[in-house]
Order: sequence, then C-alpha cells, then structure tokens
Amino acid sequence: MQTSSTKRTEQTLAAIQDTGDEGHRIFTHVYEQSALAAARAADERAKSGITLGPLDGRIVSVKDLYDIAGEVTTAGSAVLKSAAPAKQDALIVQRLRQAGAVIIGKTNMTEFAFSGIGINPHYGTPGNARDVTRIPGGSSSGAGVAVARGLSEISIGSDTGGSVRIPSALNGVTGFKPTQSRVPRDGAFPLSFSLDTVGPLANNVLDCAQTDAVMSGQPLGTLPVREVRGLRIGIPRGLLFTQTDAAVQAAFEQVVAALSKAGCRVDDMQLDDWCSAPFRLQENGTLTAAEAAHIHAETLATQPNEIDPFVLARIQRGETIPAAHYVGLQRARAQLQQSLDARIADCELLMLPTVAIVAPTIESLSTADAFNQANMLVLRNTSVFNFYDLPAMSLPIRVGTGQLPVGLMVVARRHRDRDLLAMCATLQSQVESLR
Amino acid sequence: MQTSSTKRTEQTLAAIQDTGDEGHRIFTHVYEQSALAAARAADERAKSGITLGPLDGRIVSVKDLYDIAGEVTTAGSAVLKSAAPAKQDALIVQRLRQAGAVIIGKTNMTEFAFSGIGINPHYGTPGNARDVTRIPGGSSSGAGVAVARGLSEISIGSDTGGSVRIPSALNGVTGFKPTQSRVPRDGAFPLSFSLDTVGPLANNVLDCAQTDAVMSGQPLGTLPVREVRGLRIGIPRGLLFTQTDAAVQAAFEQVVAALSKAGCRVDDMQLDDWCSAPFRLQENGTLTAAEAAHIHAETLATQPNEIDPFVLARIQRGETIPAAHYVGLQRARAQLQQSLDARIADCELLMLPTVAIVAPTIESLSTADAFNQANMLVLRNTSVFNFYDLPAMSLPIRVGTGQLPVGLMVVARRHRDRDLLAMCATLQSQVESLR
Repeated sequence: MQTSSTKRTEQTLAAIQDTGDEGHRIFTHVYEQSALAAARAADERAKSGITLGPLDGRIVSVKDLYDIAGEVTTAGSAVLKSAAPAKQDALIVQRLRQAGAVIIGKTNMTEFAFSGIGINPHYGTPGNARDVTRIPGGSSSGAGVAVARGLSEISIGSDTGGSVRIPSALNGVTGFKPTQSRVPRDGAFPLSFSLDTVGPLANNVLDCAQTDAVMSGQPLGTLPVREVRGLRIGIPRGLLFTQTDAAVQAAFEQVVAALSKAGCRVDDMQLDDWCSAPFRLQENGTLTAAEAAHIHAETLATQPNEIDPFVLARIQRGETIPAAHYVGLQRARAQLQQSLDARIADCELLMLPTVAIVAPTIESLSTADAFNQANMLVLRNTSVFNFYDLPAMSLPIRVGTGQLPVGLMVVARRHRDRDLLAMCATLQSQVESLR
Repeated sequence: MQTSSTKRTEQTLAAIQDTGDEGHRIFTHVYEQSALAAARAADERAKSGITLGPLDGRIVSVKDLYDIAGEVTTAGSAVLKSAAPAKQDALIVQRLRQAGAVIIGKTNMTEFAFSGIGINPHYGTPGNARDVTRIPGGSSSGAGVAVARGLSEISIGSDTGGSVRIPSALNGVTGFKPTQSRVPRDGAFPLSFSLDTVGPLANNVLDCAQTDAVMSGQPLGTLPVREVRGLRIGIPRGLLFTQTDAAVQAAFEQVVAALSKAGCRVDDMQLDDWCSAPFRLQENGTLTAAEAAHIHAETLATQPNEIDPFVLARIQRGETIPAAHYVGLQRARAQLQQSLDARIADCELLMLPTVAIVAPTIESLSTADAFNQANMLVLRNTSVFNFYDLPAMSLPIRVGTGQLPVGLMVVARRHRDRDLLAMCATLQSQVESLR
C-alpha cells in the first residue's frame, strides 16, 4: 500500500459519509474513532519497520452477525436490537484485530441471514453497487456493496447457502466460501449449524487468501503461482445451467473458451444426480429451516410478527419438519458427500455460473411469489456446494461497459481451500476475461 | 490357554448343545463348522510357534446386529428374517477373524436393540445365567448370558444406552463401552447414530482390553499395572443412587470401603445437574427415538405389527419429535459434554452402581407399565454416560453365595479408554471385592 492506513481510513470514512442515507443501509455501524486509532497504530508500526502481516492496516468490515465487544449483534433483525451487547469479539474478529486489521464498521444483511436477495425491511436494503435500484444479493448484502463501492477493502461475510458468493457475483467482487471446518464460528450468530461458513469478500483473490489465512489461523505466506496448462476443469452442465440469463451464459462461455485456449482440459461432467439431490431430499424440509426453527424458537413463540414476513415464512416451515426427516437428511447428505467426492476425485476444479441471473430490481421482488422464486434461483447453484461442503469462490467475469456483474463459481475438493485460492489467484492474473 | 482351541471349541459347542432349547434363545445361529475350522487353524499356527495375538484361537460370539457375510442380520427382529444376506463381515468381525478369533455364533438380543430388559417375543428370551426365570438384561441379552454360562469366552455387544453394561451387571460378567469414535460401526445395524458404541463382554478386564484393541485397530500390548493408592475417584451420589436395591447399595458400599482402605481418594461429587439433564432434555423425545424413527420408517409404514409392541411404542414416539427439538437436543448435549468434561477434569474415575436393581423376574414385566418402569430404571445409570460419550466399564462385584449379580460401573474421561481398562484391570486383580 502506498498510502498510509490512516489516510485510507480517513478517505473511506469520508466516502461512507458521501453516500448519504445509502451508507446507513450498507453499514449498521461505522466505527470512526476505533478505526482511526487502529489505522494510526498500523502506521506507527510501519514507521518502525514492524508488520503484523499482510492485513496490517487494511480496512475491513464485518457482517452484523459477528460479535464485537460492547455492541449489540443485530443479525439484521429488529428483534435483536434489545439484546445484550456482546461480551467479547467473535474469534475471527479477535484474529483480524491481532493481524492489524482496521475494523471500519458492521455491514447490513438479510434478517438472520435467511435469504439470498438482500432485502431488509428493518435496516433498509443497500442498493446494488452498480445500480441502486437492483438487489445487492444476500445475505451479506452490505458486505458485497461495501467492497464494490470502495467502502471497505475487505468485508467478512458468512455463507450458508451462498451468502458470500451471491453478493460477490451480483456486485462484481471476489468472494470465498471455505470448507466448513476451516474457519471457527465462535461469536457468530448462527443460521444453520450444519452449513454456516465464514468467508471474505474483497477486490481480488489475494486479499481473500490473506484474510482467510488470518481467520483460519493458518500460516500466512505467498500463494504459489500455479500452472494453467493441463488444469482439469469439470463443467457440471445440466440442472444448474437451466433458467440462466443469456448475459450470464455468454460471460461464462467466454471464460470457458479462454481457459480451453490457455491449455486447460475443460470437460463437461454429468453431475445432475448430485446437483439435484439437495433439492429432492429437502423438498419437504431443509436442514437450514429445521435448525433455524430451533435457533429462533423463542422469537417464533413470542414475537413472530417482528420478523420480516418473507424470512418468517421460511423459518416457520422448519417448525413442521419431523426429527426423523432431519436425521435421514443428515445421513443421506453424508453418503452423497462421499459419492460425489469419489466422482470428482480426478477433477481439480468445477466451474459454473455463481448465480443464474443478473441482479433483478428490488421493486420486481415485492410480492411473496416473485421473492421466493428469485430467492430459490439465486441460491440454487451456490447452495449445492454448502450441502456438499466443498470450498468455492466467486470470481467477477469481465463484462461489457454498462452490463451488470456476473460471477464465475470455482469449486474445489473438500479441504483443498488453499489450492483453490492459489489456482483462482493464477486464473485471475492470467486469464483475460477474469482480469 | 492350556487347552487347545479345537478342544475348547468342541467343549463349547457341546455345552451349547447341552443347554437344549435355552441355547436357541441365547444364540440365533451357531457356526459349528466354521468355528471348528478356525480353531484348528489357530492350533496349527500355535504348533508352528505363530500367533496372531492374544485373541488367536479365542472363542468369540457376536450380537446378531453385526453382519456376517452370507447371513441375514436379524437385529432380533422378525421383520428382518426376510432381509438379504450380508455381503461382507462387519468391520469388527473382519478384524476379529484376522486376529484369529473363533466366531462361535450370533447372540440373541432385544429387537432392534431398543430396551435394556432383554425380552424378545420373536426369538425367545434367554434366561438370566444365574436364574433362568429372571431377565438377562439387554439389549445384548445373549451376549451376557453366553459369557456367564461359559458358552463363549468373549461376546461382542453394542451399547447405546447400556446394552453392554446392563447384561454384564445382571449376569455377573465384565463389560466395556468405549468412547463412541473408538470402534468403527461399519456393518452394524444401527439403533442411534449419535449414541451407538461397540464393546465386548468377557470374564475379565484383560479379555475386554484385548478385544477392544483388536476391534479399534489399536496396537495390542500388555496393560500397565496402575497404582491404586492415591487414585482419585468421584462418587456421583444423588439422582443415580435413588430407587436402588439394598443388595446393590450394600455391594457398592463394600467396594467403596475397600477402595478407601487401599488408599484411594474417594470423594462424593455433586453432579446431579449433569446426571438429570439427559432426562429433563429428552422428556419430550429422545435422540434414540428420533433416529430410530428414521431408521425404521419403512417398517413403521408397512408392517408395524410385526414389531414387539413394547419396542414399537418406543420407536413410534420418535415419529412425533420435531426436528427443532432434535437440533436443540444435540446442541445442548454438546454444551453439557463440555461443561461436564471441565467439572470432572481432576477426577480419574467415577464409580456408581451399573444398574440400580438386581435382575427382576421375566414374569413380573409382562405388563407395559411394569416393563417401561423397569426398563427406564435399568437404563438410567448407564444411559447418562452414552449421552456424555464417556468410556465406562461394568465390573462384577463379589456377592454372597445365592445372591444375584451386581455390577460396579467405572467411568473415565472421553478418549481415556485405554487408561480406564488398565485401571480396571488393576482394581480387578488387587481389590478383594472385585476379584
């Protein structure tokens, strides 16, 4: 970084200010004083030649479901406004602070993180970074918009069904969802114990990789540049390519062509048995709904009408799920994970569009039917890889001027998170349409 | 062993024959030919000075819920009589055969392993080894009786709520329930994915330890003799000591006195918050019932009346459990495990009666009320340690001539299985009332 952290923090605070009301829809809190103090500390260290690593002095926002000591964690809900302030920072926030990160604020989100759209009736809906009349994508709505608009260098989101990758794709930034066990969830307000993951959104893969290293407590270090030629890429054409916008399809095919040209071994893979299974198995009740019904049991009993009706309907479906169905779902999931692992054992990466459509307008989703239909579609491709617990990134695809952002989802095998980051960093630097 | 394996196998087969009909209630299958072949092979090895380890040539029975290649696994159920034969041995059976064990037969059990009593209307109820008019304890009913009557040297049971330890206690043998993750369950018919464990019943701790080493794939080796003096033992007096037979109480206190005299630091521990929690939390539905409702969903739908009505009632309760309750139960369990781990961190062993009562007569449990009451009481002490996933043994306490068997339960911290076995072996050899 050429510019000092203090200077960049001041500029960022001013930029947030300049957005006017929009800033209050992107951030639920801005930590002006503590951010400036952290930035000055980073600059002091730098002057003495000390660094806490690549995040030292970097400007980072966190989704408002991670605890920050002394603050109420709202998780985008009006119900939680009156909750007790957090006693300590979430573990990932502790690690970020220890790595020198400047925590600039908390970002807005879908209530309880339970939709991929990003509309929030309580705290307002941040407009899409490219066109404020369009949805930001969710649930890490403010996180995606903040990075895309330059209001934080790195945003920490969470991803249960696509909540990091969807706003990354729809706002044109880079997002990373790790293998679930990689990053600890202590001090994170849960949506689904089985599926929740913690991941960053940023301007490039390298920032994601460095943030991931800090949050996962893994050693920092340079990402190896990987060999693109000969890379084996599978394209799971079929169910996850249906209902896809022409613009999304065209952008995707452009990347595929570029990768083939660069010497990758790109092959279609028939994975529809696995891609359809999460939907077939969860038709009568999802893991997330069952777990959310437990997590929000008290609110459902005492003040359901304080919850966004679109979110409420999704949680209430969880109340009707029998335990036997849930148990069977977990068993089936474990078996399917094993069989998919075997099926993709020879494949280094899978690639598909992150989201089948570009961001629709907020207005077009005002009815429950339109909302639910769009929500299911934006979550479709991403949620499959939460079900299978595979690490996945969304990379912005270069599109024409005036076109809406499109994301490329790149998926690797379980626990190959660091390989995935290295491979994506290489692709992002070497492939024209991903640059 | 002085006597050859072949000789002992012949004697055992003859002894099973001599029991007449009772043998058919203890064993669902006896493998005369293959047992003799395995015994001869062991003797051949011994003649050449080769040994596969301490189980080479030992006579072992397995509960009829472990797959044996080419055989139908009945799990004590009439419904499964028409199931397809198993394609391969359960993993523990493979390991036992590779260690030279002579598999003498499959033992009878409570249907689907879902009661601690051991009554089975389909395959008959094996009478208690000390008094055939009394219950054998379950669910590994045949396993306990077979060891106590000398019809197998070692029996493999399974323990979800006490099914190894209860028949051990009621028939006067030694039984071991490991930490769940220690022994693989591949090829075992499940009762509860969360709670099922695989453990041996035998004449002494050493046989249990050697069998456990084989089944867990851990190195064989002599158990260290431990120091009894200074051993810290906690007695969780309170809830788990209520409704206890005078004979059980007296036998237990005799052991406590002997241990104190031997220099152990025996202290009462107030653990009722933890001991009562599994019952309080599961009052409206247990983990086992929820999981059993999934496992038996097809049978419940198509032929419920083929199931023992006492077992059916327990499974059907699982159908009414909401997923949200089940999810909450798993969360609460994880938190309680952590807090109990912390509470007992300074304690090497916990001790309490394995079962609060001596074996009641089979006849006295013919009504649903009497059955359910006795079932809850015999499972009470043991099931707590499945909930907390702590390794536990039942050691027979020496009682007067003509008195019914009483078991001492010894519990250790999670994953201290080998320490527990070593400590119990020492106690069994050095403490008069456990000898």
